[in-house]
Amino acid sequence: MVNGPRAEGDFATWFAERARVNDQRVETIPFSALSGWDFDEDTGDLRHRTGRFFSVRGLRIRGGGPEGPREWSQPIIDQPEIGVLGILAKTFGGVRHFLLQAKAEPGNVNGIQLSPTVQATRSNYTRVHRGGSVRYLEYFTDRRGRGHGRGRGRVLVDVLQSEQGAWFLRKRNRNMIVEVDDDIPVQDDFRWFTLDEIRALLHRDNLINMDARTVISCLPPDRPADGRGALHSMTELSSWFTEAKARCELTADVVPLTGVTGWRRTPTEIAYDEGGRFRIIAVDVTAPHREVPSWTQPMLAPCDRGLAALLYRRIGGVPHFLVQAQVQEGCLDKLEIGPTVHCVPDEGAALPPDERPPYLDVLDSLSPDRIRYDRVQSEEGGRFFAAENRYVIAELDEDFPTDVPDRFCWVTLGQLKELLRHSHYVNIEARTLVACAEALG
Amino acid sequence: MVNGPRAEGDFATWFAERARVNDQRVETIPFSALSGWDFDEDTGDLRHRTGRFFSVRGLRIRGGGPEGPREWSQPIIDQPEIGVLGILAKTFGGVRHFLLQAKAEPGNVNGIQLSPTVQATRSNYTRVHRGGSVRYLEYFTDRRGRGHGRGRGRVLVDVLQSEQGAWFLRKRNRNMIVEVDDDIPVQDDFRWFTLDEIRALLHRDNLINMDARTVISCLPPDRPADGRGALHSMTELSSWFTEAKARCELTADVVPLTGVTGWRRTPTEIAYDEGGRFRIIAVDVTAPHREVPSWTQPMLAPCDRGLAALLYRRIGGVPHFLVQAQVQEGCLDKLEIGPTVHCVPDEGAALPPDERPPYLDVLDSLSPDRIRYDRVQSEEGGRFFAAENRYVIAELDEDFPTDVPDRFCWVTLGQLKELLRHSHYVNIEARTLVACAEALG
Repeated sequence: MVNGPRAEGDFATWFAERARVNDQRVETIPFSALSGWDFDEDTGDLRHRTGRFFSVRGLRIRGGGPEGPREWSQPIIDQPEIGVLGILAKTFGGVRHFLLQAKAEPGNVNGIQLSPTVQATRSNYTRVHRGGSVRYLEYFTDRRGRGHGRGRGRVLVDVLQSEQGAWFLRKRNRNMIVEVDDDIPVQDDFRWFTLDEIRALLHRDNLINMDARTVISCLPPDRPADGRGALHSMTELSSWFTEAKARCELTADVVPLTGVTGWRRTPTEIAYDEGGRFRIIAVDVTAPHREVPSWTQPMLAPCDRGLAALLYRRIGGVPHFLVQAQVQEGCLDKLEIGPTVHCVPDEGAALPPDERPPYLDVLDSLSPDRIRYDRVQSEEGGRFFAAENRYVIAELDEDFPTDVPDRFCWVTLGQLKELLRHSHYVNIEARTLVACAEALG
Repeated sequence: MVNGPRAEGDFATWFAERARVNDQRVETIPFSALSGWDFDEDTGDLRHRTGRFFSVRGLRIRGGGPEGPREWSQPIIDQPEIGVLGILAKTFGGVRHFLLQAKAEPGNVNGIQLSPTVQATRSNYTRVHRGGSVRYLEYFTDRRGRGHGRGRGRVLVDVLQSEQGAWFLRKRNRNMIVEVDDDIPVQDDFRWFTLDEIRALLHRDNLINMDARTVISCLPPDRPADGRGALHSMTELSSWFTEAKARCELTADVVPLTGVTGWRRTPTEIAYDEGGRFRIIAVDVTAPHREVPSWTQPMLAPCDRGLAALLYRRIGGVPHFLVQAQVQEGCLDKLEIGPTVHCVPDEGAALPPDERPPYLDVLDSLSPDRIRYDRVQSEEGGRFFAAENRYVIAELDEDFPTDVPDRFCWVTLGQLKELLRHSHYVNIEARTLVACAEALG
């Protein structure tokens, strides 16, 4: 156990050793082999017998967003608790470092990824493992009672942010960064990284996990954004966002899982009859290194790799990103700000031109030298099985029209960062792209 | 019809004439005399036959907030549409004026009050009265298609704000102020007011209606708040608010109105068996001056006048207001920032000391010279029958302890104004008190 950065040796060697120690085996199993999980007799909901963890329920969606009227139903993951995604920060040699953990999750395509210092559900830290088995937890919870902000360390970030609105029912986690002066013992699996190092690692596939990406995206910029040079003022941006919400007539009601239409349950999966975007499956996990060395659980397995792309162009010399007011059924307040394009590309390309996701064709037509970032990153490996998105940032010509459909808007990176100080504005895929955009240097 | 301010003559004469013209008669009637409204056979919900307007449904609340575990159910008003509360602004002689309307609402204790330029539900302006019968509506809707912010006039405020979380299910309205340079014909019932005049009128009982108060509270301050002189930084404030949400385990589920326990339905009311805070009643309204000269509707009638009080003390010379993270069952995200005290005073005083609302005794013990504001103001008269709160702002001694329970926090007026640029932070009663605090001069 060491206290400073770099004492663990070079990154590649350290990471390979962490991968070896945290080796896990994940196998898909029939639902009947789940231990502790049952389908409710009345509703068909898939739940843990204790009522803890999460459940798979049904959601019926009516009405429309900017895309027009629709009605459908689907399974959705209900995990009402607010968990903590917390990163410890500390300055060594004048440079701020962040403590990340090499962590295996059953859904990861590659075993371990770099995750926040603490990644814990409320059940984790209040009921199940009471007594501090979540390492470094004390810096992120129970800060009350010592006066706001006067607990251990200084809070740099503490804000609820949403997670996947297509898969989760109104799920949020507490995104936190706490800066300390204390000596911090560096436990196995943990390592200090500078922001530059984290940004460099964002240029590798599937290495910085979703939870670390969202927390890092919330880090305040060195200078406050004042909207100077932006096409739209913050008030105009607020008005665009408010208008999109006012126009959106989507309603989403929880229904019994047996009540979702078009989905069938087999011994091994809950899947949509005709294709579909995801399936619910069950897995058996063996992870000898973990406190609980084996368990079974349901997971949501996307059927295809998604695409999340952010297009930008310079306006008056300042890069402006084209974002959309993206309606998502599981979103607490109907819609949040999403990337320019967020879709399953094969599905989008198969549609007639006028039904294709806007700007997908623009992205496809760009020459390779306009692509500034193009990496595959994983979504949360504790609930999602092998869920990957291709994240792309691409620059448009300066003669690209600034006139865009109502649900789109041009914003600067500084404006997105300003909105990230608050909940309910920037969705999870857009937050990953904010972190990647800041990594472009 | 006149174009400028003051052309309508002095305020008292103008207002008396408006009251005369807008005379209305409101009578309570049995539910069976409602026209177009029925109790649903299955759920017992009280709904309009067209599915429009609003409905009275049931809400079951479980878990607890900072106050500890509780479980109860109650009727709640469900009005999922987002309406517009819009005020037109225009500068005359170098001074910004706001266009208010003398408007009668069936629930008003005194007939007419001053309301925003536009106060309209989405049904009002999209389906029912399509074609512009809501005066001045064009400045507030369909701003899209002309480019964000490039529509008629300049948007000063455009943000969704919540309404009463104890009575409404996740209700929000769009709070807007739009400044124009156009000549604006001043229709009957409308009149231009300066901000100073509005603030002076806030010192009268029941004159500036709730909708006007909330919109005015969102007006940006002349100088942006930078948190200088504040006890807590905006980041610390965000952390306090996030922690309160993470700690809150309240869940609220819509249930059939027949499923609320302890409430009984008689021919004339739905009321709680043993006392209770409100009843659901039905009224017949005759308003010859309105486009629809008579109608019937259900209303929510509070049983008592409430108290909403904001206590403040100077810290380092800067007034700091004591606010609470107030859990309310109908709130979209569990809790928002509320006044120091918000209760029914007689009910609170009847409790044993350790169960009384915190700071109610402090308020009661203050000498009269500490009371800076003390007026009765009405809540929304279109849904609530004779709903009044006593709004109080009082100054504490400078030796009043700054150490407060976890769910309370000291904030400056500038910080509250900064939060009012966003949704889901400051609740409706606190917004009235912000408007009143700014009226103290």
